[in-house]
Amino acid sequence: MAVFDTTEHSHRRFNPLTGEWILVSPHRSKRPWQGQQEEPEAETRPAYDPTCYLCPGNTRANGAVNPPYDSTFVFDNDFAALQTDVPPGDVNVGGLLRAEAESGIARVICFSPRHDLTLPEMEPAAIRRVVDVWVEQYQELGARPDINYVQIFENKGFMMGCSNPHPHGQIWAQRTVPADPAKETVQQAAYWQEHKRSLLAAYLELELREQTRVVYQNEHFVTLVPYWAVWPFETMLLPRRHVTSIEQLTAEEKDSFATALRDLTIRYDNLFQISFPYSAGIHQRPTDGQAHASWHLHMHFYPPLLRSATVRKFMVGYEMLANPQRDITPEWAADRLRSLPTVHYKQAAK
Amino acid sequence: MAVFDTTEHSHRRFNPLTGEWILVSPHRSKRPWQGQQEEPEAETRPAYDPTCYLCPGNTRANGAVNPPYDSTFVFDNDFAALQTDVPPGDVNVGGLLRAEAESGIARVICFSPRHDLTLPEMEPAAIRRVVDVWVEQYQELGARPDINYVQIFENKGFMMGCSNPHPHGQIWAQRTVPADPAKETVQQAAYWQEHKRSLLAAYLELELREQTRVVYQNEHFVTLVPYWAVWPFETMLLPRRHVTSIEQLTAEEKDSFATALRDLTIRYDNLFQISFPYSAGIHQRPTDGQAHASWHLHMHFYPPLLRSATVRKFMVGYEMLANPQRDITPEWAADRLRSLPTVHYKQAAK
Ligand SMILES: O=P(O)(O)O[C@H]1O[C@H](CO)[C@@H](O)[C@H](O)[C@H]1O
Ligand SMILES: O=P(O)(O)O[C@H]1O[C@H](CO)[C@@H](O)[C@H](O)[C@H]1O
Repeated sequence: MAVFDTTEHSHRRFNPLTGEWILVSPHRSKRPWQGQQEEPEAETRPAYDPTCYLCPGNTRANGAVNPPYDSTFVFDNDFAALQTDVPPGDVNVGGLLRAEAESGIARVICFSPRHDLTLPEMEPAAIRRVVDVWVEQYQELGARPDINYVQIFENKGFMMGCSNPHPHGQIWAQRTVPADPAKETVQQAAYWQEHKRSLLAAYLELELREQTRVVYQNEHFVTLVPYWAVWPFETMLLPRRHVTSIEQLTAEEKDSFATALRDLTIRYDNLFQISFPYSAGIHQRPTDGQAHASWHLHMHFYPPLLRSATVRKFMVGYEMLANPQRDITPEWAADRLRSLPTVHYKQAAK
Repeated sequence: MAVFDTTEHSHRRFNPLTGEWILVSPHRSKRPWQGQQEEPEAETRPAYDPTCYLCPGNTRANGAVNPPYDSTFVFDNDFAALQTDVPPGDVNVGGLLRAEAESGIARVICFSPRHDLTLPEMEPAAIRRVVDVWVEQYQELGARPDINYVQIFENKGFMMGCSNPHPHGQIWAQRTVPADPAKETVQQAAYWQEHKRSLLAAYLELELREQTRVVYQNEHFVTLVPYWAVWPFETMLLPRRHVTSIEQLTAEEKDSFATALRDLTIRYDNLFQISFPYSAGIHQRPTDGQAHASWHLHMHFYPPLLRSATVRKFMVGYEMLANPQRDITPEWAADRLRSLPTVHYKQAAK
């Protein structure tokens, strides 16, 4: 019988950050596709759009007027999923119908006044400004006694439910620690307890030794496709130094973070020569007043595309009911991303 | 201050089947939508399509020829995500790069020879035949020593990654118990241990008392929107009697199951007067040789649509990185579904 080979045979991989497994089917990427094709988005947008509710000087749905901002701009989401003025309370019928009031704050962060840009097309200094806003927001929201977790994220592209192409991200900050960061808290604490070191620092050391999943590295940050990645071109950005949150990064580390973000988003756009859709977000220490020494700051990128600009991975039947599943291997995906040019294709075409 | 009200205030609800929470933002359904609009699928298909690889008598991608079947037809998936001939083996680098060989069988079940039908348009007897095939497959696959879990599911509609509109479902059966059924195993066993009864039987009793989330009931089956539903119009079908798997259903119960399936899928199509997309699947006792007395058979329906035939719920940024979230309440969704006609809109138009 043949020898077990992860580039060929169906297998499961373990995600030590969540404690869960994913199914990998490397041989399956050859199946034909007759299903849904996505519509690539229009590539040209004006620098200013008078109908956009995020452009400087425009009026939003609730009548508020945006200031004439020239770098970033943060405001409370006009249709916030979380509210601060929720009266405390709960429901408990037989231990099976259970609800609890949940309060929080949802904000929008415009990355740039320019309606026609996206992160990979912005100058390094402008991306660095976005990193600074993330730090400020994490500190300001995290300092509130009623906020115990701050989720910073970006949905990029209509395919990822983004309702406005103006470059922006969001923050949902809330009273309880949501499911995924809560799992990562448990797993990192258990590893710390047993090994007296950060799980992700130990993991990074292994990845830097193997190199097969590393996409990019600079002095302070590394971009890699996790061994347990679920999405076809999923990546993780992490600092070499073990810090629990972005507020602990030095000025040089923040520069390196911005540079790594720019590198990754340019590679993504270059992969299929389109503005590459993804959801991305930062995982870091809950702001519940505990030290969480085991937490290691990192950022996840979850892009939906699989084979081309128009064919995505569907996380449906089996994945929704049973287990996350992927076709192409993380090693193959990392190899593709690593081999891409690091100049944005629109720049290169000029 | 106001009194906590689940129809108005942001809150979390607990899913006792998985042990996880979901975020509910009832006030948020009013936000405007300028994002992606789905393309409704073409409504008319021929009864037989010579290019369809699932129609009777046609040749598939791998050269096999479908028999001239006249009810259902089951075959091994030509591009199976799970393989039987995987050599055993694993990877373990520092406890952080961990993989294991995973073997299994993936099958396709054609529900009908008619290319132009879907479950809600099929005769009750034909749907009953599909239930019988599910039972046969569960028994046949579950009897194998190398299969410890049998996941039966259907992806309906291109929006749900379905690659062929011919009415069909799938089975992925494998060596290990996948994540979601594994969580449900743990939760049901814990409830059984503590209360000496089935979690879902106790839950059903509460739902039948409250009625606000019940969509439909017949002698043996109930359809409801779970208190902890994540998808806008998510539902669960469950037998009144506590059985651990479909093979334990009596002939009358199987009839009632087919009738409940027909009722639900007709309501779904009638909701937006389109062929309603969803992923659905059966959760039941793992076939690992243990009794699993606490397991209670049920079927989940996860439909993506939110406001109309063209506006879906996106489970993106916050949901992928932090926690599942919904806008409309389960009670509101149940009310909508309950009030719909139970004659298919295409029939009614005739
Ligand atoms: O097996 P199919 O129909 O080709 O594929 C579909 O269902 C599978 C199981 O849920 C998913 O992994 C695929 O992403 C989806 O496109
Ligand atoms: O807040 P937005 O951009 O209107 O909405 C988008 O992001 C949210 C947070 O991930 C999701 O809940 C919505 O489904 C998605 O459309």
